[in-house]
Amino acid sequence: MSDPLTLGVAGLGTVGMGLIQLLAAHAPRLQQMLGRSVKVTGVSARSRDKERGGGLDDVRWFDDPVALARDPSNQVFVELIGGEEGPAKAAIEAALRAKKHVVTANKALLAKHGIALARLAEENGVALNFEAAVAGGIPIIKTLREALAANRVKRVYGILNGTCNFILTKMTDEHMSFADALREAQELGYAEADPSFDVGGFDAAHKLSLLVSLAFGTVIDFDRIHVEGIEAITTADIAAAAELGYSIKLLGVASDTEDGVEARVTPVLVAEESALAEVSGVTNCVGIDGDFAGNLLLVGPGAGAKPTASAVASDIVDIARGLVMPPFIRSTNVLAPARGLDLGTHLGNYYVRLYVYDRPGAMAAITRRMSDENVSLESIVQKRPGRGVHPGQAAEPPPGAAEPAVNVILITHDTTEDAMRKALWAIEADGHVAERPQMIRIEDL
Amino acid sequence: MSDPLTLGVAGLGTVGMGLIQLLAAHAPRLQQMLGRSVKVTGVSARSRDKERGGGLDDVRWFDDPVALARDPSNQVFVELIGGEEGPAKAAIEAALRAKKHVVTANKALLAKHGIALARLAEENGVALNFEAAVAGGIPIIKTLREALAANRVKRVYGILNGTCNFILTKMTDEHMSFADALREAQELGYAEADPSFDVGGFDAAHKLSLLVSLAFGTVIDFDRIHVEGIEAITTADIAAAAELGYSIKLLGVASDTEDGVEARVTPVLVAEESALAEVSGVTNCVGIDGDFAGNLLLVGPGAGAKPTASAVASDIVDIARGLVMPPFIRSTNVLAPARGLDLGTHLGNYYVRLYVYDRPGAMAAITRRMSDENVSLESIVQKRPGRGVHPGQAAEPPPGAAEPAVNVILITHDTTEDAMRKALWAIEADGHVAERPQMIRIEDL
Repeated sequence: MSDPLTLGVAGLGTVGMGLIQLLAAHAPRLQQMLGRSVKVTGVSARSRDKERGGGLDDVRWFDDPVALARDPSNQVFVELIGGEEGPAKAAIEAALRAKKHVVTANKALLAKHGIALARLAEENGVALNFEAAVAGGIPIIKTLREALAANRVKRVYGILNGTCNFILTKMTDEHMSFADALREAQELGYAEADPSFDVGGFDAAHKLSLLVSLAFGTVIDFDRIHVEGIEAITTADIAAAAELGYSIKLLGVASDTEDGVEARVTPVLVAEESALAEVSGVTNCVGIDGDFAGNLLLVGPGAGAKPTASAVASDIVDIARGLVMPPFIRSTNVLAPARGLDLGTHLGNYYVRLYVYDRPGAMAAITRRMSDENVSLESIVQKRPGRGVHPGQAAEPPPGAAEPAVNVILITHDTTEDAMRKALWAIEADGHVAERPQMIRIEDL
Repeated sequence: MSDPLTLGVAGLGTVGMGLIQLLAAHAPRLQQMLGRSVKVTGVSARSRDKERGGGLDDVRWFDDPVALARDPSNQVFVELIGGEEGPAKAAIEAALRAKKHVVTANKALLAKHGIALARLAEENGVALNFEAAVAGGIPIIKTLREALAANRVKRVYGILNGTCNFILTKMTDEHMSFADALREAQELGYAEADPSFDVGGFDAAHKLSLLVSLAFGTVIDFDRIHVEGIEAITTADIAAAAELGYSIKLLGVASDTEDGVEARVTPVLVAEESALAEVSGVTNCVGIDGDFAGNLLLVGPGAGAKPTASAVASDIVDIARGLVMPPFIRSTNVLAPARGLDLGTHLGNYYVRLYVYDRPGAMAAITRRMSDENVSLESIVQKRPGRGVHPGQAAEPPPGAAEPAVNVILITHDTTEDAMRKALWAIEADGHVAERPQMIRIEDL
C-alpha cells in the first residue's frame, strides 16, 4: 500500500467544496483504482468561519495560499481561487518552485500567464494540469494532449461559454429579449453581476487561446483573436435565422492554415439540424478536426461545481498515476508564436439583417452597394410591414424616425469579410437603414 | 535524448498500414512531444509479397506473430490481426508473458478473453491498451479510464456500430429498403459479405460489454446482454417513426442500477431533435452519465483505417509517457461479476407497428389485448388504406393473404417489456395481423 497523495486546496468556493465532496464520496473508488488514497491535508480560503458543510475536519488551515503552496505537508497544490493575478498566480508560482504538481481551473490566469507558468513547471519537472479551465466537465485538454497526440489538428472550435449559450437558447426557445434572458441567467447564477466578460466573448476567447496552444503547438497573442459578443443579437435575428433553418450560437473557431492561425469568437448561424445547434443551455461542446482521428465532437456540461470538480479530480488522478508531461504537450521552448491571421480575408457566407426604410429605391441602392463589392446574394427575404420577419414587427416607424421601416434579410454567397464590411459601411452611410446593419457569419459545421 | 520506443506490429491490413503511415507522417511531432522516437522494428503479416506502399524498408519480417511478440527487438507489441482466437490471442499472451506492453484493436477477442488477458497484463506489470476496440477514433476508453476515474458512472450508451448506422441512415434519408442499404454498405466496404455479426447487433454488444467493465467495474456475461439487430426494421417503421418525429437507431445501453446491470443492444426510437438522431452514416457516438461529470457525449468516426490508427497511436503514446494502469482501471481481482438484469422489468414507452387486416372488430380486439396487460396507449395512428403510413402502402392484400391490411402505429405510455410481449403474443395469436408485430423501445436520450 503506497502513501496517500496529499493535496493542498486553495479556494473553497463552489468548485473547491465540490472537490472536497467528490474526494469524500469516491475515496474507496480512488483507493481501489490508484492503490493509494487521495487526501486533502491543507486548505486556504478567504473566510474560515463561513459555513461550508463537512469534509474539512482533519485539514490544516492556511491564511495565506502561498504558504499553503509551499508547505511540505502536501504534494499537489490545487488552485481554485481564481483571478488572473494576485494570490492565485503567486501561489501557483510558489508551488511550482517548490517542485509541486499544480492543478488549476483558472482560465483567465492561464490565458495570460500560461506559457510562463508552463515553463516554470517544465523547469521543475512537475505537472501543471488544467482540465477544468476549458469546457468544464468535457475532457478536452486530455483529448488534445493524449488522445490526439499523434494527429495534426487543423481546426478546433466550440461553444465555450455556457452563459452565452444559455442566453441564446432562451432567446430562441422562449422568444426572450437579450436583456430578459441575461436577467434570468443572472438570477440562476449563470452570469455575473457585470456580465460583459461572458457576453462580450472574452471568456470564450481565453479558452480558445488555450486550445490554440494545445491543438496547434503555437502561442497566439490574445489581441490577435477576433472577439465579438452576443450583446447585439436581437430577437429579430433569432427569428429570422429560425425561419431560414438556422440557430445562432456564440462559437470560438481556430484554424491552423498555411498562412497562419485564424482565431475568432463570434456569433454564427449554424444549421438547425447540425450537432452544434442541439447544444442548448449551459452545455458546452468542442469539435476537433484531426488529420487521422477525423472530426470529433465532445458535448457536456461547461460549468457547475460538480463537473468542474470532476475535471479537477481527473487532473489529480493523472498525477497519482505518475503522468507528467509538458503542460502544452511540447516544451515551451518549441511552442512557436502563431502568425495571427486577419479576418478580412475570411471567406464565407454571411447573414445580413438591415432595418430598411420603406421607401422607393432603398433596396436598389442596397443591392448596388453589395454588387459594387462583388458580394452576390443567395437570397433576399423582405416581408411587408405588419407581416414582420420577427414577431412584433409592425408598420410603425422605429423610435426617433418619421418613416416606417422593415427588416430585410440577405444571405450572401461566398465572400470575404472585408468586402462585407465595406458594403455595409456604404449601405449605412447611404442612410436607407434605421439601424446599424447586422452581419453574422454562417458556419457549415 | 532517450532511446526510441520500439514496436512490433502484427497484421498489416488497412489499420496496420494506417498506423505505419501515421508514424511516418508524424515522426517529428512524436519525437518533439515524447522526447524519443517511436519506431516499428518488426512486423508480421499473412503475405509478405502483397503491395503495401512504403514505410517498411528497415523492419524485420516475422512469419509467426508469436515469434514477433516474443522477440526482444521490440518493447511494445501491437496486435492488428483480428479474430477472437488463434494467432491474435496466442501472440498477445506471448507478449504479455514476455513483459511487453500490448496495444490491440481486437474487440471480439477482448469481449471474450479481455479479463483473462488483463489479469496477465497486471501480473506482468505491463499495459494492455485497446482504445481502438470501441468506437474507432472516439477516445472513449481514455475518457472512462482517466477523465471520469473519479465518477460513479450510472449509464453508458452509444451508437457503436457504423455499419448499422449507415444502413439506418440510408433507409431514413433515401427511403432505401434494408436490403438495398445493406448492399450499398457492402459495396462501400462498410459491411462484410456475411453481415450478420454487424446487423445482428453482436459487434455492438461486444463493445458494450467492454464499456460495462470499464464504466461500472463489473464483468457481464455476454449472454446477459439482450441483443436485437436491425434486420427486422422496415421502411414502414422508418416512415412511421419520422412521421411521429423520431429516428430509428441501433443503440447499446448499459445502466448500473441498485438491482444489477441492464445491458442491451436494440433498435430504438430517439427524438429527431436529439443529439443521437444527428449521428449519421458510419459515425459513432458514446454517452456517459457520471455522478459528478454529468452527461457527456462523444461523437466521431467509428471505424476506418486512419481514425483507428489514431486510436492505436494514442495507446502507444500513453506507453511512451509511462502511463500503465490495470486495463479495466481496477485490478481484475476486484472486478465484480455483474448481476445481469432481465429486460422484462424494463419500464418505458414503446412504438408498436401492427399490419392489421382491415376487418370489423380487429382494432377492438387489439386494444383489448393491450388493456388486458395494463398497457395504456398514448396515441394510435391508423391510416385509411391507400393513404398509407409509409410510402407504397396500398389497399391491396399483403402477399399470401386474401384481405387488405393496413399499418397501425401505437405509442404506449410507460409499461414493462413483459407486458408488451404478452400483449403482442396475444394479438398475434388472435390472427388479426398479417405480420409479426413490430415493437421498438422509445429512448429519451
